[in-house]
Order: sequence, then C-alpha cells, then structure tokens
Amino acid sequence: MPEIIDHNRAQRLAAECLGTAFLLATVVGSGIMAENLSGGNVAIALLGNTIPTGAILYVLITTFGPISGAHFNPVVTISFMLRKEISISESVQFIIVQIIGALLGVLAAHIMFDENIIQFSQKVRTGPAQWFAEGVATFGLVFTILATLRAKPSAIPMAVALYITAAYWFTASTSFANPAVTIARSFSDTFAGIRLIDAPFFIAAQVTGAVLAKYFARWLVSPRK
Amino acid sequence: MPEIIDHNRAQRLAAECLGTAFLLATVVGSGIMAENLSGGNVAIALLGNTIPTGAILYVLITTFGPISGAHFNPVVTISFMLRKEISISESVQFIIVQIIGALLGVLAAHIMFDENIIQFSQKVRTGPAQWFAEGVATFGLVFTILATLRAKPSAIPMAVALYITAAYWFTASTSFANPAVTIARSFSDTFAGIRLIDAPFFIAAQVTGAVLAKYFARWLVSPRK
Amino acid sequence: MPEIIDHNRAQRLAAECLGTAFLLATVVGSGIMAENLSGGNVAIALLGNTIPTGAILYVLITTFGPISGAHFNPVVTISFMLRKEISISESVQFIIVQIIGALLGVLAAHIMFDENIIQFSQKVRTGPAQWFAEGVATFGLVFTILATLRAKPSAIPMAVALYITAAYWFTASTSFANPAVTIARSFSDTFAGIRLIDAPFFIAAQVTGAVLAKYFARWLVSPRK
Amino acid sequence: MPEIIDHNRAQRLAAECLGTAFLLATVVGSGIMAENLSGGNVAIALLGNTIPTGAILYVLITTFGPISGAHFNPVVTISFMLRKEISISESVQFIIVQIIGALLGVLAAHIMFDENIIQFSQKVRTGPAQWFAEGVATFGLVFTILATLRAKPSAIPMAVALYITAAYWFTASTSFANPAVTIARSFSDTFAGIRLIDAPFFIAAQVTGAVLAKYFARWLVSPRK
Repeated sequence: MPEIIDHNRAQRLAAECLGTAFLLATVVGSGIMAENLSGGNVAIALLGNTIPTGAILYVLITTFGPISGAHFNPVVTISFMLRKEISISESVQFIIVQIIGALLGVLAAHIMFDENIIQFSQKVRTGPAQWFAEGVATFGLVFTILATLRAKPSAIPMAVALYITAAYWFTASTSFANPAVTIARSFSDTFAGIRLIDAPFFIAAQVTGAVLAKYFARWLVSPRK
Repeated sequence: MPEIIDHNRAQRLAAECLGTAFLLATVVGSGIMAENLSGGNVAIALLGNTIPTGAILYVLITTFGPISGAHFNPVVTISFMLRKEISISESVQFIIVQIIGALLGVLAAHIMFDENIIQFSQKVRTGPAQWFAEGVATFGLVFTILATLRAKPSAIPMAVALYITAAYWFTASTSFANPAVTIARSFSDTFAGIRLIDAPFFIAAQVTGAVLAKYFARWLVSPRK
Repeated sequence: MPEIIDHNRAQRLAAECLGTAFLLATVVGSGIMAENLSGGNVAIALLGNTIPTGAILYVLITTFGPISGAHFNPVVTISFMLRKEISISESVQFIIVQIIGALLGVLAAHIMFDENIIQFSQKVRTGPAQWFAEGVATFGLVFTILATLRAKPSAIPMAVALYITAAYWFTASTSFANPAVTIARSFSDTFAGIRLIDAPFFIAAQVTGAVLAKYFARWLVSPRK
Repeated sequence: MPEIIDHNRAQRLAAECLGTAFLLATVVGSGIMAENLSGGNVAIALLGNTIPTGAILYVLITTFGPISGAHFNPVVTISFMLRKEISISESVQFIIVQIIGALLGVLAAHIMFDENIIQFSQKVRTGPAQWFAEGVATFGLVFTILATLRAKPSAIPMAVALYITAAYWFTASTSFANPAVTIARSFSDTFAGIRLIDAPFFIAAQVTGAVLAKYFARWLVSPRK
C-alpha cells in the first residue's frame, strides 16, 4: 500500500505474524465465547463472532498497515506479488509467517478459554455451494482492497472490516477468504472450525477468486487515459 | 457525483452491474443465513440482515463511487438524470444493467446457499401503510444522497449505509427503496422476498418518493445567494 | 455550528422540522418493529431500537447540519442560545417546529405500521432514579456536542450517534434527553412511549442537565490563554 | 497525544475523572440494563454491554482527548510516563482521579438503576487462563494506542473503541484491561462485577501486558532511519 513507511524486513515479518495472530485469536476466541453464551441460538452466536471480527480488522489494518501493508492473508500477498509491489522472496516469507501467526492466534485463544491447546476440527464444510461461496467471498475481498486502494486508501481499514462483516452472513461458508485462516481454523474444534480434509478445497477456491479479482480490478479501476 | 474519475462506458456499466449484484447477494444471502440460524426470532434475523446490508453498502459505494457514481438503484439514476448529471441514454443503460445485476446477485445467493436457482416469492407485502412506508423510505434515501452530496460528499458511503440500516427498522416494509432490488427480490422465496404482484405498487411508491425528494432537496439545500 | 452555510429562515425551520420528524419516526417506528419481532426478549428489542436510532442521527446531523445546525432538540437550541449563537426569537421558532416535527414523525410511524394515528402512552417512567438518569443523559449529550464542537467539529455526527447508542443502555430511562422527543413519545402507546403525566419531570431533568453541561463545558474546554 | 491543547492541571484532572466516570457508568449501567432485559441469554446481554461500551469510548476519547489525552486508565498513563510524555507527579495524580472517577461512575450507575449504592461483587474471575487473557487484552490495548498514535492519530477514538468491542469477546475475561476499571467493578455486584480478592491478579496481568506492549511497540513502529 502506498503509505507504507520504510521498515526493515524483521519489522515487516513481525507485523504480519502478530497481526494474523490477533486476527485468529479474535475469530476463534469470539467464536468460543459466542457459542458458550448464546444458548444454542446460532444467529446470536454469529453476531457475537461477526462484530468482533470486523472490529479487530479495522484496528489491525490501521496499526500494522504502515509497517507491512497489513496483508494477514496469503492471497492478498499473492495479489500484490502479481502487481509486482512485493518481491517473490518476501512474499514467501510473508505467507510463512502469516500461517505461523494464525496458528499462534488459535493457540492463544485456546489457552485464554482454558481449552485443549491442540485440537482438530470435526466441522464439515464442503460441497460445490460452499466452494463457490468461498470463491465469491475472496473475489470480493481482494477486489475491495484493490479498488479502495485506488479510490480512497485511507478507507481501507473500514472497507475491509465492513466487507468481512457482510461476508460472514451473505456467504454460506461464513467467508473464510484466507488460506492462513483456513489452515489455522482446522486446528480448532470450536464454533469457527473446519475439517483439515476440507481445507484444500476452500484454499483452491480462495486462490481462484483472488486471481480473478486481481485481473478484473486492473481492468475496472483504470481511469481512461 | 463530483469525484467520479473518467472511466469509459463499459467500465461504468460493469460497475453498476457488479455493485448491484453484490448488494442483492448480500441482502438475499444474509436474509437466508439469518433466517436459517435465528431459531424463529425474527428480530434477530432482521439484525442479521440489516448489519451486513449496511456494511456492504459502505464498501460498494466506496469502491464503485469513483467509477460509476455507485447508483445501484434506478430511482437514484433518475434523480441524477433530472439534475442533468447523466444523459437519458446512459440512464436507460444504467437501469437495465442494475436490474440484470440485481437478478444475478439473487442467483448467486441461491447457488451459495444450495437453494433452487429460480424461485418466486410468496411473501405478501401490500397495502397503503406499506406503500406509504416505501414512499417515505425512498424520499429519505434520495434526500440523504443529494443533501450529503452538498454537505460532505466524502460522507456518502457512511450516510447511505447508516440510512438503510435505520430504514430497515423504521419502515414497516423494511425499506426496499429501490426498484431493481424490488424486482430481484420477487424472484427469491426467502426472508427478503416480495410477491411479484406486489412489486409494481412498491415501485410506484418509490418513484414518487424519489421525485419529491429531488425537488425538495433542490429547495432546501441551496445556500442563499 | 461553525460550518453552517447561509440559508434563509424558512430553510432552517424546515430542516429542524423535517429532521426531528425523521428522528421520531425512527425512534418510534423501530421501536414498534423491534417489539413486534422480538418474541418478548426486550434486550433484542432494545438493540433493534438502538442501532437504527444511532444510525439515523449520523445521517440527519450530516445532512441538516450545514443548514440549521441540526439541533432537533429544544435543550440543544437553548444551549446555543445561552452561548449567543442563535437569537432568542429564532430559538423559540426552532423549539416550536421541533415539537411539531416530532409529533409529525410519530404520526408517520403510526401510519407506516398501520396503528391508530393518535395514541396516548400508558408507559410509566417516573421516580428519582429515572429523573437522575435523564439529567445525566442530557448533561452527557450537551457536553458531547459542545466539547466535540471545540475538539473536532467534523466528528459531531458520529459522536452524537454513538453517544445516544450508549445512553440508550447505560441510563435506566433509555435516555430521552430531548423535550421534543419526550412530548412526542407521550403520544405513542408503543415500545418507546412515556405517560404524558411523566413527561414534565423528564423535561425538567433534561433542562437541568443541559444547562449544567453548558456551563461546565465552558470551563473545561477553554484552552489556557 | 500530539494534539493536546494547552489546558491547566485542574482541567486535565477533571477530564480524566469525568471521562473515567462516564466510562464506568456505561460499562456497569449497560451491564445492568442488558442483564435485566436479556431473559437469561448471556450472549445477548454481552452484546448489550459491548456496543454501548465501544460507542462511549469513541465519544469520550474524541471529547476529552485534546484536554488530558483521554487515558482513563492507569496503565495507559504509565505507558506515557515511561515514554516521558507525562511527568511522574502528574501520572500519580492522573491515576488517583481515574480511580475516583471510576468509583463515582459505578455509584452513578447504581443510582440510575435504583440499586444499592455500595455493593461488593461476588463474581469469581480467576485462574491462569483469565490472567493470560487480561495480559493479552492489555498488551493489545496499549499496542493499539501507541501504534495508532504513530500511524494515524486521528483514528485513535475509533481504533480504541473497536479494539475494546473485539476484546470483550475474544478474551475469556471480557477484557477489563484497566486497573481503575477493575477496582471499580469490584464494587458492583452486577453483570460487570469482579470479586475484590480477584482484582490484584487482574491488575498484575494488566501491568505486565502494558509494559511489554510499550517496549514492543517502540521496536516495531520505529521507521528505519
């Protein structure tokens, strides 16, 4: 993103790792809290999962944006790599620390809620409808980032937060839209979980949606010369 | 809107089509999600429908605003046509692609939630109280757009998002306030649906409210010379 | 407010009347909607009343602010009168049209929801605890307006919207904080109502809180010379 | 914070006292309201506690920020003292008036809701999981403030409000993250309470998290020379 201030590589990687950790701690932690308290009403639980997730995204993108760009998401990093705004080698490092951060965030949520630290989700999330939903969700997320970057960069924290707020509800999959998030959530047998065996299909759909969004955005948001 | 950057016609039409599609996918998709999960508590379902709709409006107006003006609504297009800010021929094209986009958005929601793709709503929404409500809702929407355009154009995404958030609850009709939305929702037999036979009355009320708002705003928001 | 553009008296009065009408239509309309749908869970009903009220306040202050200052509230008008930013004669006119607008808003809500147009609330809201709550709520509202005006005028729409969002919940009275709103709500026997006989005590508490806030703000927010 | 305008000591102390009082009145008052109305559904009660708390934080930081910096929190004051942005003697005064203000806010909430004015909480909140959660919550809060101060100071009111909105749900302790809040809430035997005997452990965890955040932020957010 344009407003990135010059930080060194270690700072950028730490920002991606810590930011993704806080994102996952929020997604998984608020999911546990919401499910525990909701008395079985899943819509209330999803509200209690959606509002904190949207809120923390605004915070994380505002605070980490000037350091690393606040990707927190391998497909976002890939999109910027395709735009040649980040090198291939740094992209690989970003993706590795995003996944590590995501796993640490899940562990932290489990510790905070006194749950078993290592878990494997049993939650089935599969089938063409869900894969299509993940493709749409990720297309929308990457398009939102790239179009807002052109239209009004200062609005990115709010736009991403509100996009995910909406996408939790309008996609049947509750919008994972992020391979690091998908991997990490397969290690939590809680409200936000997904079976590890279902994760690769989600990730394939996410990558497809992101790449389509990248090229579509390039055409749509270019002002006429 | 003043900050529109020069894009060509195909880009503008694509923006109107895609934006309206995402709007409808959100309205109908979150309606399905909310109804499925709410355990029969309709207020919770309406919260789960309102929050995503408001959120996506902020995103869509921020991202598409500089391309097409982000109308997504035939009566908004008509209001700008009456102000001579968009030609009649482009207005007709906008309205056509808004309706196409709206229908595509409904289809996408149905696919994501594994529902029958083509549906016809059985939900009765009729009577003078509801028509009056639609007139009020649309008057308020168009007035909000035109007055905010004068007062603080950068606030339009938030103002429209929050106006619709409020209007879902203060109008007995849940504020369709948009003929393309009304038509498309008649093809979804879900939480957000409306019988096709009831749609023309809603649309008549919406056009009436919009035209009144256009002329009222012209008087009210003109600074004294 | 500083950013008021020069409008004539009729425009200013129309803005106060229409804005207060939309405010009351939202408060009462969303209250009816929320109560009807909430299945007896009053916390859900209050959420469905709070979120739209906060949302419409942002919209109304953004749109009407540059025309009339967007008071919509006799004690706000009185506070500005004490600051000599509005004349006594115009203040009286403002208060009259605020009350008329508030009553029109209640009527509009009743029509939209197919209720009896004229109603008298039976809801008891009385006692020292509630009066103290109204005093605190109104002190906070007027202080918020005056302090934000000094700190960051562009934040007033959001600050007032969020203040009322909070005050609906932290005051036992659900924060009327507005004599025009209090009078108008006594003519609605719905979720948001208040007995006419209880209104004068609320109004006395509101005026007290507002005047204290005006003088306290003058001391607190004055930078050292 | 950089935008503090020159106010005298009495004004700054009054701002810290009043702001913390309003914060606690909101936390405790909305907790009472939410619990009373929620019919035993704790997730709904927590929504009714979270939304007002986030909302009032935006308001209080916007209005009091230019006067005192809007700390309202001893560990925030300590963080700024470690940065040498506030003297030790003023820090001690700030912390004293924050605690006094917090207690006054709890009293005000009890009066508004017609409860016993003096109460002692029986709510057990203890154990390593909760202490870890408080450490994480406070680390995140102080990091958010310091990083946003570097990245975009005008976003601090929104960033803090949304951070706390998220932290109410993703930490098992509902994120006290504030010693003055912790002490004051031990004097309220309501939804938001905590046993006095459990408070010191929470405070120790908060101070630890805050100090770690202060030094971590210094490393992470320093642009490369």
